[in-house]
Amino acid sequence: MVDTVFESLFNPRSVAVIGASNTFGKWGFNIFNRVLASADGRRVFPVNAEASEVVGIKAYKRVTEIPEPVELAVVTIPPQYVLDAVRDCVEKRVKVIEIITAGFGEAGAEGAEAEREAVAIARRGGVRVVGPNSMGHLNTHADFYTTPWITGLPTGGVGLISQSGNFGINIVRRGTALGIGFSKFISSGNEADLTFEDYLEYFAADPQTKVIAAYVEGLRQGRRFLTVARKATRRKPVIILKAGRTHAGARAARSHTAALAGEDQIYNAAFKQTGVIRVNEVDEILDAAGALIRQPLPRGRRVAILTGGGGPGVIAADACARAGLELADLQPETIAKLDRILPPRWPRGNPVDMVGETNLTYPCLLPLIEDENVDAVFSLAVGFADAIRTIIMDYVKPELQDQVNTYIKLEEQKEIKALNKLIQRMDALGKPVFLFPPSGIEDFGTMRHLRENGILTYASIERGARVLAHLADYADYLRDLTAEQPHEPE
Amino acid sequence: MVDTVFESLFNPRSVAVIGASNTFGKWGFNIFNRVLASADGRRVFPVNAEASEVVGIKAYKRVTEIPEPVELAVVTIPPQYVLDAVRDCVEKRVKVIEIITAGFGEAGAEGAEAEREAVAIARRGGVRVVGPNSMGHLNTHADFYTTPWITGLPTGGVGLISQSGNFGINIVRRGTALGIGFSKFISSGNEADLTFEDYLEYFAADPQTKVIAAYVEGLRQGRRFLTVARKATRRKPVIILKAGRTHAGARAARSHTAALAGEDQIYNAAFKQTGVIRVNEVDEILDAAGALIRQPLPRGRRVAILTGGGGPGVIAADACARAGLELADLQPETIAKLDRILPPRWPRGNPVDMVGETNLTYPCLLPLIEDENVDAVFSLAVGFADAIRTIIMDYVKPELQDQVNTYIKLEEQKEIKALNKLIQRMDALGKPVFLFPPSGIEDFGTMRHLRENGILTYASIERGARVLAHLADYADYLRDLTAEQPHEPE
Repeated sequence: MVDTVFESLFNPRSVAVIGASNTFGKWGFNIFNRVLASADGRRVFPVNAEASEVVGIKAYKRVTEIPEPVELAVVTIPPQYVLDAVRDCVEKRVKVIEIITAGFGEAGAEGAEAEREAVAIARRGGVRVVGPNSMGHLNTHADFYTTPWITGLPTGGVGLISQSGNFGINIVRRGTALGIGFSKFISSGNEADLTFEDYLEYFAADPQTKVIAAYVEGLRQGRRFLTVARKATRRKPVIILKAGRTHAGARAARSHTAALAGEDQIYNAAFKQTGVIRVNEVDEILDAAGALIRQPLPRGRRVAILTGGGGPGVIAADACARAGLELADLQPETIAKLDRILPPRWPRGNPVDMVGETNLTYPCLLPLIEDENVDAVFSLAVGFADAIRTIIMDYVKPELQDQVNTYIKLEEQKEIKALNKLIQRMDALGKPVFLFPPSGIEDFGTMRHLRENGILTYASIERGARVLAHLADYADYLRDLTAEQPHEPE
Repeated sequence: MVDTVFESLFNPRSVAVIGASNTFGKWGFNIFNRVLASADGRRVFPVNAEASEVVGIKAYKRVTEIPEPVELAVVTIPPQYVLDAVRDCVEKRVKVIEIITAGFGEAGAEGAEAEREAVAIARRGGVRVVGPNSMGHLNTHADFYTTPWITGLPTGGVGLISQSGNFGINIVRRGTALGIGFSKFISSGNEADLTFEDYLEYFAADPQTKVIAAYVEGLRQGRRFLTVARKATRRKPVIILKAGRTHAGARAARSHTAALAGEDQIYNAAFKQTGVIRVNEVDEILDAAGALIRQPLPRGRRVAILTGGGGPGVIAADACARAGLELADLQPETIAKLDRILPPRWPRGNPVDMVGETNLTYPCLLPLIEDENVDAVFSLAVGFADAIRTIIMDYVKPELQDQVNTYIKLEEQKEIKALNKLIQRMDALGKPVFLFPPSGIEDFGTMRHLRENGILTYASIERGARVLAHLADYADYLRDLTAEQPHEPE
């Protein structure tokens, strides 16, 4: 049953927007136009108590007047009219009602009572409810959006559940800018009927979702969460940013949500037990999701660092140590291989300092990734040809630009070839490679090539190190699971 | 004397590039072309042992053959020719030699010996040396660059000293992308003659530099550093990222630099004693520098948080607590003022949750900034009109776009007016305001208006909280100084 509900939610054949409006600035205007724009193959009906047309489309006074079936009803009218709309939806036999309208459970006792009543009416009629106080949802694979604040996303594998609509939308926007593709996003609102656990269960089964990310303020179904999360993490990684980590945060959370924020240690234990990757900051959700979509899980925490100069190597060593990673002791044969590549003055240790010879990056990376003492590789020197192009073209005289262009094209081709070989080795050996190219020049050949292959680069070494530590933790969890319970059924 | 040297370095009337080349891919090609492009009002001479012309300009075999005076000589030839070039520069009476060439002190005993000799020759001749192993420098206010990897920077107030050229260049690139303007940047290289302390002293006196930022691997003149840094921090903030913080990092640092990385606690104590703002991550340098350029220093650590929804408020409360900030206890009269603005269901506490009514952001911000219990304000809701424009225009039908545009223009004007009022109050009351607008939509009206007024926005609340804590620390240091030593001469 749940699957049918979610199919109606994320890919409905017909949608009614109750409160669709002609007035820009109203939610009913934005949502209706957004749904309309993603209507390909879908029937979309405006419901408006007064207007006979909304943006040129015949409107209905009530959802019951629509002459065709309606799978999903999106409700954007003021709270006092919502109960009647829910009754209409039951009568119309819609499958899911998504209530955008706020002013319910989060707004005090009266609102909470109305919320309970709305859900009771819906449930009696066999209709499921998203929200209230949701900011909508989207499905990139079906090009369907009810949230008006995001548009034009590429398809992708990260499914996002957020108990804050604003926050979730911000995460999707920033992730997209970083090159992360989302499969689906849901703003779960007050979760009066469908809860976080329902969405988690659905995302765990959803073949288009490869990694689940979530922003959580409080969980209402603790036991069910444990069961659902445990199952989910066996199939795909689950990353959660839990608000209210500190005393101040927990107090802030209590003041605005019906759910208790709960003791942080309890959440910590629950996440650890279930193999959930708990992150502390918004950037970490995206960094971790981006890495988990494509990178193999590391077998351990031993990192080889390749650097063009000493300073970044030191910063990287610091960052790794702070994140709980170790610098790998390179095998003597690896040192010997590097000796044949690098100038004699290289310091023969890890970080591997190429002493400025960044053109040796790829020849050096291969022995490093093949070293049995190495679980993951950080390369601080990539994308040199791109760096040259963007910058030098700005000041080189027009008559020299042909020469520069020829050189760059050649370098770029070499680099992409080398990257392909590296990615191939990474996959074959099951070792993640983290690339940290020069900053501020993300929109060029090699960078694009990396993104097209799902390999994200990191804005700072510290962020990369934190992510690798999360990957290692998750890998440990999965390994322990296999070791302890070899025959447990799925 | 020092001032003259730095004037010759950062704004020379004449520059020779020793090793200027016609072959793209060589440093001598890139540097010469870069210097040439920033030559406005400057004389630029290529020095090349073989070619009679470099990119169409008459070349000289030796710097001594140049028929005019040369203030700055940039050296990019292989190490074995550098000593002769230095001798020529002495004979030619150049003021400063910038040695880009690597393979000296950082490359082993032989290189160190050559480095000592080069400096001895220069010093005997009264010439100062930058590097060797420098990646060049720049001065945006004079549009002068020797580093070929950066171009077209706006002028600005952040002066950057970096003991890693690559790292420094990355910091400049990323900072520029964030909206930070740099005054000058120097890659100090091996610091065989001019040291970190020299640059710090110069930047402290430089009127175009308002904030000093630095990447440090090791300091060679500990005592002098204490004196120079103490003086500098009284005049302007000094932010330092010190590599080698952890054991692994310190070991990595020892392996590549002649200078001892030193015990981290000693650095920590030195930075604390001298009021240096010590940051841990690259992002923090930029965030702190951007804030210090424009924001008033807070009187304390009590933050008021304004949020459109509960979730981000919780995240912000968490982030503040983790950074060592406090949530301000709002005065009863502030609560009363907010009561008159916000709907009755707002939770009457800090974070101030506007329960979705983000159009009330500016009316709410003013009472918050005026509250005597509040030292700084975090606003998680700004730039709404922009958000609407970028996104909604993508899916709204062409015939509706006029309506949408009119609405947005009006909203944007209102917002900019409100922002101006806010900034005015911020300055009058001396309280910093940190703005966290919706992500992924940085290139629009209100965001541009903020940047033009020097107000940076933050990609994450966590980053903003860390920066505010740094500002509060620095303010504490300055206050203690005034309290303890009221009559100490400058």
